[in-house]
Amino acid sequence: MGTINVGKRFGKRLKALRAERGWSQEEFADRAGLHRTYVSAVERAVRNPTLPILAKMAKGFGMSLVELMESV
Amino acid sequence: MGTINVGKRFGKRLKALRAERGWSQEEFADRAGLHRTYVSAVERAVRNPTLPILAKMAKGFGMSLVELMESV
Repeated sequence: MGTINVGKRFGKRLKALRAERGWSQEEFADRAGLHRTYVSAVERAVRNPTLPILAKMAKGFGMSLVELMESV
Repeated sequence: MGTINVGKRFGKRLKALRAERGWSQEEFADRAGLHRTYVSAVERAVRNPTLPILAKMAKGFGMSLVELMESV
């Protein structure tokens, strides 16, 4: 998989995981301990999350980093 | 898994993957298109890689992001 559009693939993954749970960006941001605008920026692939942020996101979904990275 | 020491867990994972292949930091840095000092900093958990960097590292090892994140 190309490294250039990994941000877009991850944004899509984040949106899908949120939609599966019926969570708004606000709800997911609260669960992950992040700001809503940051979640929105990552979903639009305009911000690149670091490893600790990815770990927070995985924890917010109650899953491992491995699970979070599926299809990315 | 805690999000606080995810950097340390990833540094260990990177070192182990490199050792399995008998690669120096220099060799892996070349394969991943990164600088050796950056690889060293990530292994020591003093730098936090972003998602595109993680994708470059996965590609450098010839594996997916899911495989790279195992045990992290």
